[in-house]
Amino acid sequence: MDKKQKILIIGAGLSGSLLALRLAKKGYLIDLRESRKDLRITNISAGKSINLAFSDRGIKALALAGIMDQVMKICIPMKGRLIHNLDSSVFFSPYSGRGDKHINSISRGDLNAILMNEAEKLPNLTITFESECKKVNLKKNTAHFYNAKTEITEKVKAAIIFGADGAGSALRKSMFLQREILFSFSQQWLKHGYKELSFPAANNGGFLTEKNALHIWPRGTYMLIALPNIDGTFTVTLFLPHSDAKYSFETLNTSDKVLQFFKEQFPDALEIMPNLVEEFNTNPVGALGTIKCSPYSYKGKTLLIGDAAHAVVPFYGQGMNASFEDVTVLFKYIDKYENKALNNAEIWSKIFYEYEKERKKDADAIGDLAVENYFEMRDHVANDLFKKKRALEMKLEDAYPDRYFSKYSRVTFNDSMPYSVAKKIGNAQDKAFLNLIEDDVINENTSVKELFDKVKQKTDEIIA
Amino acid sequence: MDKKQKILIIGAGLSGSLLALRLAKKGYLIDLRESRKDLRITNISAGKSINLAFSDRGIKALALAGIMDQVMKICIPMKGRLIHNLDSSVFFSPYSGRGDKHINSISRGDLNAILMNEAEKLPNLTITFESECKKVNLKKNTAHFYNAKTEITEKVKAAIIFGADGAGSALRKSMFLQREILFSFSQQWLKHGYKELSFPAANNGGFLTEKNALHIWPRGTYMLIALPNIDGTFTVTLFLPHSDAKYSFETLNTSDKVLQFFKEQFPDALEIMPNLVEEFNTNPVGALGTIKCSPYSYKGKTLLIGDAAHAVVPFYGQGMNASFEDVTVLFKYIDKYENKALNNAEIWSKIFYEYEKERKKDADAIGDLAVENYFEMRDHVANDLFKKKRALEMKLEDAYPDRYFSKYSRVTFNDSMPYSVAKKIGNAQDKAFLNLIEDDVINENTSVKELFDKVKQKTDEIIA
Repeated sequence: MDKKQKILIIGAGLSGSLLALRLAKKGYLIDLRESRKDLRITNISAGKSINLAFSDRGIKALALAGIMDQVMKICIPMKGRLIHNLDSSVFFSPYSGRGDKHINSISRGDLNAILMNEAEKLPNLTITFESECKKVNLKKNTAHFYNAKTEITEKVKAAIIFGADGAGSALRKSMFLQREILFSFSQQWLKHGYKELSFPAANNGGFLTEKNALHIWPRGTYMLIALPNIDGTFTVTLFLPHSDAKYSFETLNTSDKVLQFFKEQFPDALEIMPNLVEEFNTNPVGALGTIKCSPYSYKGKTLLIGDAAHAVVPFYGQGMNASFEDVTVLFKYIDKYENKALNNAEIWSKIFYEYEKERKKDADAIGDLAVENYFEMRDHVANDLFKKKRALEMKLEDAYPDRYFSKYSRVTFNDSMPYSVAKKIGNAQDKAFLNLIEDDVINENTSVKELFDKVKQKTDEIIA
Repeated sequence: MDKKQKILIIGAGLSGSLLALRLAKKGYLIDLRESRKDLRITNISAGKSINLAFSDRGIKALALAGIMDQVMKICIPMKGRLIHNLDSSVFFSPYSGRGDKHINSISRGDLNAILMNEAEKLPNLTITFESECKKVNLKKNTAHFYNAKTEITEKVKAAIIFGADGAGSALRKSMFLQREILFSFSQQWLKHGYKELSFPAANNGGFLTEKNALHIWPRGTYMLIALPNIDGTFTVTLFLPHSDAKYSFETLNTSDKVLQFFKEQFPDALEIMPNLVEEFNTNPVGALGTIKCSPYSYKGKTLLIGDAAHAVVPFYGQGMNASFEDVTVLFKYIDKYENKALNNAEIWSKIFYEYEKERKKDADAIGDLAVENYFEMRDHVANDLFKKKRALEMKLEDAYPDRYFSKYSRVTFNDSMPYSVAKKIGNAQDKAFLNLIEDDVINENTSVKELFDKVKQKTDEIIA
């Protein structure tokens, strides 16, 4: 393939920067554009969550880009969920019965900075900031950019255009509006929104609560979570209905009501939230949506990747990992085709076609899994049946580390299993477990051997 | 309620005209706008199917508007499906074991004309043609109209704006683009498109094939259907993949290939299609999509209705009937609230809120049912298992006319059962039937009493 043809990547967020880095390392000529200011110079967080869950699929993708040594340094391991009850008692629910498995809390900004720094080292790559894509002319393969500061509009022509421009993607909108494409599209909003809050660091720079856990205060129709940051603070997120509920962002409209709500519902959290009211009144309410679409590409010339193709809600901690995995999957097909004796257009057409054929079903699956986990995290985590199941699953994962995997493990720690397969097996297995516990076929006295066989048999039945 | 406040209805198609007629009959002041020319003067059919299936839910809605006497005169009863095999043999599959039940073929244009004529008789209603809605300003409740002939743009302010402007609704687009609304939206295209063709009338003005049936040539991945018109012609529709198949609109690209395809696949139809090649080369390929959205309304001031809220594919023959039923359901809440001692804004808010609460799940259900039937009509109708099931169901409907209803009957002939309930029971019942036949628990020798009990029991099990 002729690598001197320009590749334009819209969006220097997490997936755009990783894609740019990997393509540039292969020698492609990359024009990477970002609508916002350089986050390494200016502090930007508007509309983006501050820290994220980073796990195996993401790690695999960054290892393939050769940057995991650096990234490891900004990871805080979280070994399980620390559930906070109403009476302030807690219990710890490990993510896996295999002791070594954990997920990580990571700063979105710091990770993005590493990706950009690495990308900028390469001579065949440029990053242009404050260059906002307004639309893409698909026939001419030109993208229209606008700089709000200079008020200059620029048309950029490229051989290939990647849309890594997030949930509000301008490329996706252009594909949606192009009548000639039968563009299937879905955006679904949850009735819950979110607001980011914080726990401060301890005076000594340490942590005011357990560092190596994802904290959850599950309360049925609302929930608080907290993830650690390397400076000792925690980013705390309140998930609450927008409206139409006793407690909602609409009804919590005075400082007193906010304080009263936290006092009743999250008393132990409130103790370490000196700035609660100020943060609550200042920080915006975010919306939680799932986006699915198809096709991802147009005539082998443009491709949607990351959130632009499949925004997901945050309840499986897989949004960033799924976007990074897009790049892993895409490179499988770039590697397969780039040296074939075909012209560039034919090569990219094949790459994009096979990429979507593999990836679409998995991106849809993680979108569904994340919505399903929205209900599980809010509700089931604190439910007795769920706790019994979780305890039995931990026993199984401990006894059969290479043979038994919970749904969570399949999704999170099994990066060779596609999301769609993890979803199918995982959901059947969960159903099997709950049925067997409810019918008292299995309980805490069942031997692990019998437990394994019973669950396996029932799961196979359900899948069949 | 103050009825002198202007109500704007965008779109004088089937649902817009019916809504306008019923509101005007109640004394409301109606401004009805249509983007196209008056179809009573100019022959317009572009992008719209010529005839439609008209059944109980639609009939109920038009009876409530007091126009069924007129409409009956343009109905052609279709008592079942006449299936045409590859060898040109046929078999008849009645829509119901109850002899009196049938659906109707009706001309979209003639029906729309009746609705407009009736509406125009009322002094408090005006229809303006060639007035195309470009967008709606939701904050100001103004709609922007454009007349392509005069090139005049007009802003219309109204107390209430209804979007009855079809699948491409300008009101829906304005709601989609308004960031403040969390507008969930989905458009899903089938891989099949359609093309309209025809059978001419006989020389004596009669019909060249059975008049009182919906003709189907099911061929697995493609299908031909034909519905009668009152002038003796049939409107024939070919459903075929757009591409990526041996036979597709992409591959049938010469007159010879088209002729050969029909000769092989639809030989008996070809015999009465003297203009096949000309029609095939002239008529456009249409796309088949399902649209779902929520919310339907904005602050009690605008409401989406008909295809604008829920476009469905044509495979259950319910698109028009569902849109008419919207009006029936809406009036349930207008009747409930219009005389309450509240201000107009409060009344319309309550009406729109309760309307969507009832209607959304049913509109979604008929959208899903229509896609499911896309597979059934193409494939299963000619399948042995399906034929056995259909024969046994006919026996049951005949023996228990008031107790047994097939899924098709529940959807089509049971206008007091919401679509969502028809879908749930109907799908369980279909599954029960197929399981019982496959396991040979029921067959043609089973007594009707036993048949009824077995199917009922299994259906209840599946629902539970």
